Amino acid sequence: MVHAVPRTVGPGERALYTALYPSRFALYSSDVFARACGLPASPLEDLAAFHVVFGKSVPDVSLNAVANLGYAEGRFLAPVWPGDTLATSSEVIGLKQNSNGKSGVVWVRSTGVNQHGAAVMSYVRWVMVRKRAPDAPAPETVVPELAGAVAAEDLVLPPGLDFTGYDFAAAGSPHAWEDYAIGERIDHVDGVTVEEAEHMMATRLWQNTAKVHFNATFREDGRRLIYGGHVISLARALSYNGLGNAQIIAAINAGSHANPCFAGTTVRAWSEVLDKAETAAPGVGALRLRLVATRAQSAGFALRDTDGRYLPEVLLDLDIWALMPRRG
Amino acid sequence: MVHAVPRTVGPGERALYTALYPSRFALYSSDVFARACGLPASPLEDLAAFHVVFGKSVPDVSLNAVANLGYAEGRFLAPVWPGDTLATSSEVIGLKQNSNGKSGVVWVRSTGVNQHGAAVMSYVRWVMVRKRAPDAPAPETVVPELAGAVAAEDLVLPPGLDFTGYDFAAAGSPHAWEDYAIGERIDHVDGVTVEEAEHMMATRLWQNTAKVHFNATFREDGRRLIYGGHVISLARALSYNGLGNAQIIAAINAGSHANPCFAGTTVRAWSEVLDKAETAAPGVGALRLRLVATRAQSAGFALRDTDGRYLPEVLLDLDIWALMPRRG
Amino acid sequence: MVHAVPRTVGPGERALYTALYPSRFALYSSDVFARACGLPASPLEDLAAFHVVFGKSVPDVSLNAVANLGYAEGRFLAPVWPGDTLATSSEVIGLKQNSNGKSGVVWVRSTGVNQHGAAVMSYVRWVMVRKRAPDAPAPETVVPELAGAVAAEDLVLPPGLDFTGYDFAAAGSPHAWEDYAIGERIDHVDGVTVEEAEHMMATRLWQNTAKVHFNATFREDGRRLIYGGHVISLARALSYNGLGNAQIIAAINAGSHANPCFAGTTVRAWSEVLDKAETAAPGVGALRLRLVATRAQSAGFALRDTDGRYLPEVLLDLDIWALMPRRG
Repeated sequence: MVHAVPRTVGPGERALYTALYPSRFALYSSDVFARACGLPASPLEDLAAFHVVFGKSVPDVSLNAVANLGYAEGRFLAPVWPGDTLATSSEVIGLKQNSNGKSGVVWVRSTGVNQHGAAVMSYVRWVMVRKRAPDAPAPETVVPELAGAVAAEDLVLPPGLDFTGYDFAAAGSPHAWEDYAIGERIDHVDGVTVEEAEHMMATRLWQNTAKVHFNATFREDGRRLIYGGHVISLARALSYNGLGNAQIIAAINAGSHANPCFAGTTVRAWSEVLDKAETAAPGVGALRLRLVATRAQSAGFALRDTDGRYLPEVLLDLDIWALMPRRG
Repeated sequence: MVHAVPRTVGPGERALYTALYPSRFALYSSDVFARACGLPASPLEDLAAFHVVFGKSVPDVSLNAVANLGYAEGRFLAPVWPGDTLATSSEVIGLKQNSNGKSGVVWVRSTGVNQHGAAVMSYVRWVMVRKRAPDAPAPETVVPELAGAVAAEDLVLPPGLDFTGYDFAAAGSPHAWEDYAIGERIDHVDGVTVEEAEHMMATRLWQNTAKVHFNATFREDGRRLIYGGHVISLARALSYNGLGNAQIIAAINAGSHANPCFAGTTVRAWSEVLDKAETAAPGVGALRLRLVATRAQSAGFALRDTDGRYLPEVLLDLDIWALMPRRG
Repeated sequence: MVHAVPRTVGPGERALYTALYPSRFALYSSDVFARACGLPASPLEDLAAFHVVFGKSVPDVSLNAVANLGYAEGRFLAPVWPGDTLATSSEVIGLKQNSNGKSGVVWVRSTGVNQHGAAVMSYVRWVMVRKRAPDAPAPETVVPELAGAVAAEDLVLPPGLDFTGYDFAAAGSPHAWEDYAIGERIDHVDGVTVEEAEHMMATRLWQNTAKVHFNATFREDGRRLIYGGHVISLARALSYNGLGNAQIIAAINAGSHANPCFAGTTVRAWSEVLDKAETAAPGVGALRLRLVATRAQSAGFALRDTDGRYLPEVLLDLDIWALMPRRG
C-alpha cells in the first residue's frame, strides 16, 4: 500500500525542527561541520525524516488505532537532503486477534523513499486496532519474527561519512566512542515544558492528522494527546547534554510509548549504554543506547515497578543505534 | 495606492504554512506531484499568497475598521513561486455613508503583483469604517456592481496545468470532478482547536499588523480576535478530508466572517457543491464550493436561523472555485 | 574560547523571524527592495544574527549566570546571507569579585564569524556569576574600559549600501533622517502579548539552551523567564511604527534588561533620538536611538524613579545606532 501525499522537505522544515526541539547536534546544525565529516551538506535531522515517513502512514495504519504498541527493525538507509521528496509505502506483515474478539494487533513494515526511488528509512510498528466486523471469524494469526535489535553489521552509514578529522570543540562535547562503557547511564539534566501550540505545530509539520492530537473535543477529558514522535524528538534533543557527539541515529531497534504525554508536562531524559560496535566507516563507532523520556518528577533512572510495568513517570523507552566519532 | 513593504516568500513560508494548517493537498506538498501536473515545481499555497497580499493592505484599508463585511471577485491570476517578491496595490471603488452619519462602507479592489509586475491575484473587499470628520457632508454614494460569482470562463488556470495523468493514490482521494453533484454537502469530519500562539504566528507571518489580533489589552474583554484569514486557511485545510483532489483555489466568489473566532475554539468545516464547470486545461474541471467553518458544537449543516442570520456557531461562509481532476 | 555548534542559517530562519516578531522593515522583507538599496539580496535580520551569535555563547558564559548586567561596544560587521554558517568565539576581558566574596562580574567580548572567517558582529556583555570556590582568594580586579557608545565613524556599513534611490512608499514611512531631532521621543503605539510557545520557539531557534527559559519546574514560582533577546526583537519590530525607515541596526551601544519578562505580558515600546551622524555611504544617515520596551501598563515615556532605578514596568533600555535614508 502506497500512502498518500508525497512531501518535499527543505530549509523551512530544518529551521522549524530547531525551533520545536532544543537540538544542537552539529552535523544537523552546520553545513560546514557536515562537510568536514565527508557529507555534501547538512542533511535533514534523521528524526524529521522519520516523522515525515511515519506521518504518511497514519491515515492508513493508525488513524483510529487504540494504541501504538511498539517499534522494531528501524533503519535509516540514506540521508534526506533539502529539496528531496519523500513518500511512504507499507506492508502488513502480521495479524493477531485479541482474545476479546473485538480488537487485534496489526504489524506493519513502512518504508520511506525519495524522489529517486531510493529507500531512506524502514521500520516495523505494531498497533492495536478495533476489528471492523466483530462477528467475522478470526483471521489466521501471523506473528512476525522481529529482531530484538538491528545487528551492528546491518547499520547503513551515510556514504562518505568520515569522523577521522572530527572537531570535538565545534561539536561541543569532548567525549568519544571509547569514553562510553556498556551499562553506563547518563542523566541529560535539562527539561522542557511542552505547550499545546508546539506539539500541534510539530505534528502538523509532519502531516500527521490523527484527531486525538488536535481536537480538544475528541477525548472525554478534553485533553489533546501529544504525538509520541514529539516526545522522541524532545528526548533525542535533550540527550545532546551528555551525548553531544552521538551525531546520527542509524537505527531504531525497539520503542514503547510507556505513558501518554499532555501539554504542561516537563519532559526530561536519560540514556543507558546497551552495546558498542565498530563500523566500516573511518573514525566512526556505533553506540546502542536506551533513551528514556520521563516527566520532570521522575527519580533517578527508575524505569519499571517490581511487576515489570513502566512507572507512571516514564513516557518513552527507546532503543537506538547512534554513530559517534572514535578517537582513532 | 501602493501598499508598503514588499515581501519575498520561499521555503520557510511553505514549511510554516504546513505547521500552522493541517494542509495535505498534494500539489502544494510535493514538487514531484506538481511536476506530474505540468507545473515547474510546487507553488506557494494559494491562500498563503492571498494572506500576504491581504496583509499588505491592512495598514491602509482595515487597521481601524469596525468590521470586515465581505469579499467578491477574487481571482488567482498566476502561481507564486519560492523566491517571488509580492507587493499589493489597492483602489477605492465604492463608498456609502451609513444612516447614522458616523460610519460608512468602503469598497476596495486590491491586486497583488510579483517582481515581474505580473498580477498574482485580485479581489474586492468591503469594510465598515468610522468617518474621519463626522460633521463633514456625506460623500457621494458609489456602490460598485459586483459579480455574484466569478464566471467559470474567467477563471485563470496556472500555465501548463494538466490533470490527464493525475495520480489519485498519491493525492490521497479517489474522487474526481464527475463524482460531485450540485447540491451535495460534505462533512469534513476533523476539528482543530486553535491556540493564541498559532494564530498570532500565522498573522505575523502575513505581516498583518491589526492590533486586535495581538494585543490582549486592546479589547475590553481581554481577548485577541483571530484574523479571519486564519479561519479560512483552517477550513480549507480541513476540507482535504472529502475534497482531497480540490487541489487549487482559482477564485473567491464571495465570503463573510459570520462570527468572530477566539483561541480555544475547535474549528470544523463542511462544504456544499454550488456549481460545476469544465475548463480549457486538459483533465481539469472546476467545482464551485461553499466552504463553511463552524465551532465544533455546530449541528449538521446548519447555517442560518429562520430570520436569515448566521447561526452563532458559524464562523465563515466562503464561496470559491476549486480546480479538480476529471476522469477523462 | 571557541563556542560549540556552528549554525547554517537560511530561508527557514528568515520566515520564522517574521512569524515570531511583527517585523516589517522592508530591507529584510524583500529581495527587490534590498537590491534597490545596493545589496545583492535581503540579508538575515540583524538581530537574528545577534541571537545566533549570542546563543552559542550561553553554555560557556551565562548558562548559570545570576544576572545579565549589560551590553557595550556591539557592532554589526558584515551582513549574514542565507546559507551562511555562523560560529562564535569569546574572550574574557574583565573580572571583579563582589564584596560578598561569593559572586562576581565577568566581562566577555564575543565575536561571530561566518564560514569565510569574516567577523559578522562583535559585542561585550557582562554577567554576574557565582564564584566556583567561595574560599579561594579574590582574583585580580580588571575592569575593562568600555566606550559609552560606538563612535559614528566606527560604524561598519554593508558594502554597496546606497539609499539615494530609496523608495519611501515601498518602505511604508515618509520620514527621512532629517526629520528626526535629537531629544525627540516616539511612542510606537502597538503592543504584543507574548505566549510561552512563542518565546520558547524563538529561543530554541537561536539554540540558546538556558534552562530558565524552558523548564517550568526550574524556578520556584513555576514561571519561565523570557530570553532578554526576545524582548529586544519585539521592541525593535514594534519600532517600525514611527521608525519604519530605520532599516539597519549598525551598533548596540549599551543595553540593560531592566526587569524580567514572563508570558502573558503585553510588550510595548518607545524610542528617543539620542544623536545623529552622517555616514560615508550615499544617502545614508545614522540615528542613535534609545529603544525602550515596557509592559502595556506603562505611562508615557517614564523610565526611572526618583532614585534613578528603572520603573517596574520597564523591561529593556537599549541604545543602538540605526541606518536611515537621507533626503539628499
